[in-house]
Amino acid sequence: MSAAADQVTLTEAELRDLGTRSFQGLGLTLKDAQDACAILLLADLFGLSTHGFSRMESYGERLQIKGIQARPNIRVEQVAAAMVKVDGDNAVGPLVGMRALEAATVVARKCGVGVALARGSNHFGPVSPYSYIAAQAGFASIIGSNSSTSITPWGGTDARLGNSPVGFAVPNPGGAHFMLDMAISVAARAKIRNALKRGQSIPDTWATDKHGRATTDPAQALDGFLLPIGGHKGYGLALLVDLFAGVLSGAAYLTHVTSWIDEPELPQNLGHFFILLDTSVLGSTQWLAERMCDFAAILHGSPPADSSKPVLVPGEIEFAKMAHQRQHGIKIDLELHARLQRYAGRVKPDAQGPTNG
Amino acid sequence: MSAAADQVTLTEAELRDLGTRSFQGLGLTLKDAQDACAILLLADLFGLSTHGFSRMESYGERLQIKGIQARPNIRVEQVAAAMVKVDGDNAVGPLVGMRALEAATVVARKCGVGVALARGSNHFGPVSPYSYIAAQAGFASIIGSNSSTSITPWGGTDARLGNSPVGFAVPNPGGAHFMLDMAISVAARAKIRNALKRGQSIPDTWATDKHGRATTDPAQALDGFLLPIGGHKGYGLALLVDLFAGVLSGAAYLTHVTSWIDEPELPQNLGHFFILLDTSVLGSTQWLAERMCDFAAILHGSPPADSSKPVLVPGEIEFAKMAHQRQHGIKIDLELHARLQRYAGRVKPDAQGPTNG
Repeated sequence: MSAAADQVTLTEAELRDLGTRSFQGLGLTLKDAQDACAILLLADLFGLSTHGFSRMESYGERLQIKGIQARPNIRVEQVAAAMVKVDGDNAVGPLVGMRALEAATVVARKCGVGVALARGSNHFGPVSPYSYIAAQAGFASIIGSNSSTSITPWGGTDARLGNSPVGFAVPNPGGAHFMLDMAISVAARAKIRNALKRGQSIPDTWATDKHGRATTDPAQALDGFLLPIGGHKGYGLALLVDLFAGVLSGAAYLTHVTSWIDEPELPQNLGHFFILLDTSVLGSTQWLAERMCDFAAILHGSPPADSSKPVLVPGEIEFAKMAHQRQHGIKIDLELHARLQRYAGRVKPDAQGPTNG
Repeated sequence: MSAAADQVTLTEAELRDLGTRSFQGLGLTLKDAQDACAILLLADLFGLSTHGFSRMESYGERLQIKGIQARPNIRVEQVAAAMVKVDGDNAVGPLVGMRALEAATVVARKCGVGVALARGSNHFGPVSPYSYIAAQAGFASIIGSNSSTSITPWGGTDARLGNSPVGFAVPNPGGAHFMLDMAISVAARAKIRNALKRGQSIPDTWATDKHGRATTDPAQALDGFLLPIGGHKGYGLALLVDLFAGVLSGAAYLTHVTSWIDEPELPQNLGHFFILLDTSVLGSTQWLAERMCDFAAILHGSPPADSSKPVLVPGEIEFAKMAHQRQHGIKIDLELHARLQRYAGRVKPDAQGPTNG
């Protein structure tokens, strides 16, 4: 472990160990802590630090006030040969996500396709860790979650849908998996906050004011609503994610989803969906590797408009970041590190053995 | 049949009959003609006239020069309990699409989920007719097709991917199905052509010039490339559609797809994918109807930014258009009508009986 200004640098093994013990300190069993930790660790490895261990602040607070259950009874119900429903019993989101992903994997291995629809969950981290785990096992995937409301219906004036994340992946046995993980807004609120700090205007495609009118003023935008990509197209995509993750799963949806910020003590009843396709039934790994590598090569072959920015395929940034951090360590804010240590410090000395695989 | 300026108005039954006989005149069997016609008819009923019978011009030309096979041997191969591959044998696209949709429906009814991956196809029309047929039978769906290249990779400077259509639907047994059918570009080329005609500039988010640089000049845009929604997000979505429809199906993908405009005599080897979820295994139709109607009501309840434009749910425009045209007839350009009559006129008098169901 080496230190920088207001950050510490941990190896992957150190962060896995600390993260697992943190979840244990918050009351999870060793196995559940390991599984939830795996998602946040991948998020930080991919460079998605806003969706990695930084989320332990809200997860920890909600676990401590019983807004999230530390010892849930997660149930998997098989409703058809290729489809399962998962009741997360208000467990921590990445744990429900992992259980649902595992359940989808089991049926997809049998049927070629597998779908898991989860309800009774909470914020489950970013999508790409799940997509990555699925791709490593040979599954192409479409995975999404609903979320608390922050976006207006297209042409509306109040927040009635979430900036729901959705991710898509196709395994490449011969290189980097194709991996796309996106929210539906044109820009994140953080980018608008940064523009405000710098005294800059923003493009009128990013957000509306509180009356639902497009604005270039970051202050009015922060008081208003994020705009979806492609206008009515992004609005429709966000709805689709909520329909699969919320309506079909039996979870809450749209304004029925409670806010973890305003009401952290309440179950959110978030929903997720996992659609997996087993690529091994379609052809050999060599067949798939050749096609995926050719696919990437065609895209890379397009001369860039800006010669300093070669064309990328989604997933490449995350893979490069992971390779770099596995070699050079993962930087964590000191404050977050102290929080994780505080949570981990609660683990009783007689807790189950080593957590670090 | 009543007439207006340069259009004729047909009833649904008249257009179905004429469309079916047109396909028969181009060499298709009665059953195949009926199935291909069903897709184009729904397209026109939904008001998607650019993707309805207007496509008979190119379909007809390609069928006549054997660029598309009139009497194909479409094969369905079951590769897993819930997954089939379909070889379209270079049939007309809507016919391959219908056969693949049927095959996906059969496995989805058995397994709760069904996937069909089709190759050896051609332009299959818009997505929403397939989504609608699936939704009428109780299936939620994700359906897409790849297409010939018209979009540059994000940051690139030449056309290497298609403006691929993708559609999503969730059935509402108590009202209009949720139905989203979209291409990945911010704007259609037709809108840029209209701006040029009117001497107007276009937003710099619509297209690039031929060097891959954003432009507000419609002339330069028409010489350049369409931009995807949400920048790298839409680029990623377009790739995902091509990966599922092209790479996984065994079809052509990216620059391997031949252009029906430049090389109409060649098979395109387009691919499509159909992912169906049987909602009947998730709950009763009453349960689903209540949730879907509540979902729509929440969205409709958002006060509109412009009081003349109430908030809509994707699919409502198409349903309203269909209801209107079923009552008042479908308007068809005179030139198209003459073309359909020309094709239909080739049907031998002893061809199989009545085509109008």
